[in-house]
Amino acid sequence: MNIGIIGAGSWGTAISKILLNNGHTVRIWTRDTNVYESLTNGENPYYLPGISIPKTIIPSIDLKDVVVNSKLIVLAIPTQAVREVAKQIKSYYQNQIIVNLAKGLEINSQKRISEILSEVLGNVKYVILSGPSHAEEVARDIPTSVVAASENKNLAKITQETFSNVSFRVYTNDDVIGVELGGSIKNVIAISAGIIDGIGGWDNSKAALITRGLAEIIRYGKKKGAKKETFMGLAGLGDLIVTCNSLHSRNRYVGEMIGRGKKLNEIIENMNMVAEGIYTVKALYDEIKALKVEMPIIEKTYEVLYLNKDPRKAIHELMMRELKDEN
Amino acid sequence: MNIGIIGAGSWGTAISKILLNNGHTVRIWTRDTNVYESLTNGENPYYLPGISIPKTIIPSIDLKDVVVNSKLIVLAIPTQAVREVAKQIKSYYQNQIIVNLAKGLEINSQKRISEILSEVLGNVKYVILSGPSHAEEVARDIPTSVVAASENKNLAKITQETFSNVSFRVYTNDDVIGVELGGSIKNVIAISAGIIDGIGGWDNSKAALITRGLAEIIRYGKKKGAKKETFMGLAGLGDLIVTCNSLHSRNRYVGEMIGRGKKLNEIIENMNMVAEGIYTVKALYDEIKALKVEMPIIEKTYEVLYLNKDPRKAIHELMMRELKDEN
Repeated sequence: MNIGIIGAGSWGTAISKILLNNGHTVRIWTRDTNVYESLTNGENPYYLPGISIPKTIIPSIDLKDVVVNSKLIVLAIPTQAVREVAKQIKSYYQNQIIVNLAKGLEINSQKRISEILSEVLGNVKYVILSGPSHAEEVARDIPTSVVAASENKNLAKITQETFSNVSFRVYTNDDVIGVELGGSIKNVIAISAGIIDGIGGWDNSKAALITRGLAEIIRYGKKKGAKKETFMGLAGLGDLIVTCNSLHSRNRYVGEMIGRGKKLNEIIENMNMVAEGIYTVKALYDEIKALKVEMPIIEKTYEVLYLNKDPRKAIHELMMRELKDEN
Repeated sequence: MNIGIIGAGSWGTAISKILLNNGHTVRIWTRDTNVYESLTNGENPYYLPGISIPKTIIPSIDLKDVVVNSKLIVLAIPTQAVREVAKQIKSYYQNQIIVNLAKGLEINSQKRISEILSEVLGNVKYVILSGPSHAEEVARDIPTSVVAASENKNLAKITQETFSNVSFRVYTNDDVIGVELGGSIKNVIAISAGIIDGIGGWDNSKAALITRGLAEIIRYGKKKGAKKETFMGLAGLGDLIVTCNSLHSRNRYVGEMIGRGKKLNEIIENMNMVAEGIYTVKALYDEIKALKVEMPIIEKTYEVLYLNKDPRKAIHELMMRELKDEN
């Protein structure tokens, strides 16, 4: 199949390797001429250092060329850039399947990616691919399991067949809302888990935080129409665990730096990749009050990142909540 | 309150510090005269090196003395020793509250600790204290959250009040079966997670394994009368996460050594602490066939530990299960 990857960050580049190995013709778009040059030389040192990229993957800086020559489009750009890119491709988009890899909520609108795409492009053939899948490992063929979710069972099935191989396993699912929310909110929990790492590497505290973080995700998700089971699966719990624990996780890294006393601005300045949780927590913070859903970890994380709350004080406040029954 | 701790391993010793700090009179029993001597000198280098133990904790090698002088008994011994110790105290046990810290199933009988105690001691005032709580961190006052479960709400409440302090938070719960099973089976999943660490430190694979491992625990637990919610909480997911990830985890360590090619016998010989999962997997293995519950991770872990299956082959087989819908 002709497949076009929009975005040559670490995840877009890693998935292009998977798809090429599966026998597809793969074009990958980047707006960055340096990345383009590197890809033509069989590498992407900016986002996936040390990994060789087959030269049979076709890099391009022409977005239209990539879109019109693809039967399936993989969206691999940061959440806050999705609306803009959707607008750009609108005039020549031919209702191809879009498999989205981005995990986040749009600031201000609190919209999920599928909602943004619907607003701009109309009735999209949409699939979200999510789960515990750090690009650095996927690019090295380390065994990885993910979920392809679509309201249209057939689209999920096509994605499963297109992306799966011996080390990359794709399960189908029909809960788009749950998969999108699980992938988005876990990034915020990962920042708070990283804060604990930065303060002291406290395993007991972090495990409790992840457990209670999942409960917050479930509470929010249920209000939004997601299924609880989805959050118990790969795109919920699985992705939450890897993002909270892996040294590859950028969101966890941001938290760790915060826990060590760095300021958010300087952390962002020194990163060349996007930690989606920094923005998703903004999208969530206002909404949770309106929704009347109890999300103390999300609130404390926002306060630490944006209201200068001391991280140790935040943890102390989380711990000192009234002693009660667990459920 | 006069409290007696039966067992001066790492967890019994750590909890004795918590209880002493909370203002209780604490006796701690060990059968090991070396440990006894150390405790009188304010340390326990065999099980909790580098941690100072207040000398106001009263060590004893007289089990009867500890039991009869206590209003509340904390059971902190390995699972396979519980029946024997229960028999020993039977003649002078005065129906005091027993707060159990052990996490495992008895080999052959597949019984939980509360079932073993009922068989030997009759109608016990039983509480199980469980959750993500590595002793090494609890002993250093690192923020920790656990669950006290009892069929008798009042007993859970007493335990909560007795054990809680600013860094050790106890939530009550009424699902004894769920808390006991969660704490037991997670040790087996942790061995398999450790195997992945030993083979390659694959974060994506490990997160998928933990996610699917929790699903196995839930399937088994439901057949045994436990509540699903319990497994989503601190004594299920929370303890699973910490045991699969922490460098303090002995079960994870056993798996890591297996993943690096060591044999189970030599690993056990070189450990002075018990990795409960080694025995719990035996208790489970026969039963899951009879129960007709799908637990592929538990089965593969047993095969690797006891039937010489190659760990890489086991992972490959787990990955190659038929592509399907997630739920």
